[in-house]
Amino acid sequence: MRLRNVKGAKEKIIDSPYVIHDIENYKGHFKDIFENDNPIHIEIGMGKGMFIRECALRNPNINFIGIEKFDSVLVRALEKIDIDIPNLRFIRMDATEIDTIFDHEIDTIYLNFSDPWPKVRHQNRRLSSRMFLTRYDSIFKDDKRIIMKTDNRHLFEYSLIEFTEYQYHIEKLCLDVYNENMIDNIPTEYEIKFHSKGFPIYMVEVRKTNKK
Amino acid sequence: MRLRNVKGAKEKIIDSPYVIHDIENYKGHFKDIFENDNPIHIEIGMGKGMFIRECALRNPNINFIGIEKFDSVLVRALEKIDIDIPNLRFIRMDATEIDTIFDHEIDTIYLNFSDPWPKVRHQNRRLSSRMFLTRYDSIFKDDKRIIMKTDNRHLFEYSLIEFTEYQYHIEKLCLDVYNENMIDNIPTEYEIKFHSKGFPIYMVEVRKTNKK
Repeated sequence: MRLRNVKGAKEKIIDSPYVIHDIENYKGHFKDIFENDNPIHIEIGMGKGMFIRECALRNPNINFIGIEKFDSVLVRALEKIDIDIPNLRFIRMDATEIDTIFDHEIDTIYLNFSDPWPKVRHQNRRLSSRMFLTRYDSIFKDDKRIIMKTDNRHLFEYSLIEFTEYQYHIEKLCLDVYNENMIDNIPTEYEIKFHSKGFPIYMVEVRKTNKK
Repeated sequence: MRLRNVKGAKEKIIDSPYVIHDIENYKGHFKDIFENDNPIHIEIGMGKGMFIRECALRNPNINFIGIEKFDSVLVRALEKIDIDIPNLRFIRMDATEIDTIFDHEIDTIYLNFSDPWPKVRHQNRRLSSRMFLTRYDSIFKDDKRIIMKTDNRHLFEYSLIEFTEYQYHIEKLCLDVYNENMIDNIPTEYEIKFHSKGFPIYMVEVRKTNKK
């Protein structure tokens, strides 16, 4: 995504009640923010937030936290919230720190149209790399569940190999979301743009069951 | 595949030195047929045999057995053998009997453009169903390895779910073989025909490692 400086972004983020600022106070009990015991789903790299906002609106009994690295992008998500959404929050942070923020409290991770980092020497930066799967281990509460969408074939192929070599199994898979009548599909901004060019959108849901 | 009666098919099959007739004599030691200890790869549902013949020619240190249910199809494969291929044989049989034929002696199974059996009530007939994966268990020698190609998206999606739920992991994956410069891809007759229509060909290689 091309980034522009957004004037006043920092101030808007600081002022927003939707952004969790004192994250270090909540490790292991982010549920306190929502004041309930509902499951917590996070989207890593939420961009302008269309997906996670719609998820939150459709699923009032699930809490959603969108994670975004850049002020200038996060502020766009904040600007779009025009009604009260009590089950939605945002964190501005780098995904590499994810395992220092959460502790056995997440139910589902969404990875939507993540940066493919096409060069092999950058593969550890891909959010579905073994490096990141290891980080996710300690943030999940019980079963580990990741739901991914992308238009990038190579990233998708790579991810399925990484997931299954790390003992995730595939629960749902669609190699062409828009030819499948997936009526409950919630698109991202990027997805709408890309799909209109006629390329397939890939989706997978993987799970790793906790051995008890 | 539309089947025609082929005149004299039965006789040609009986006369062919490439067809293993007395299969019950070889269970557990099919290597005796090839008179060496090379790995044995099988293709279940080989059709007219273009793929497995080419595999055998390119890999003289691997033994190949093509399995086909119908006389009228198998005879076409026999007709195409115009040079001696010592590492190639055929068996006429129904795939449901596979675990009564082989015993811990197969290295790799190829499933190429298998019948998708689109109706859910027929899913146990799909060669990548749990039902068949269970049958394959006892025919593999060490690690279990299946290499599948298909143009059928739903069959492919279903198969990846079945494989990974049965603890196979994905080792290689390509969601568009002909856009990938897979120079070592060996096409089947059906594949050539279908690819020319512009649809993607999917390929996956899965493995289940024997715990020792």
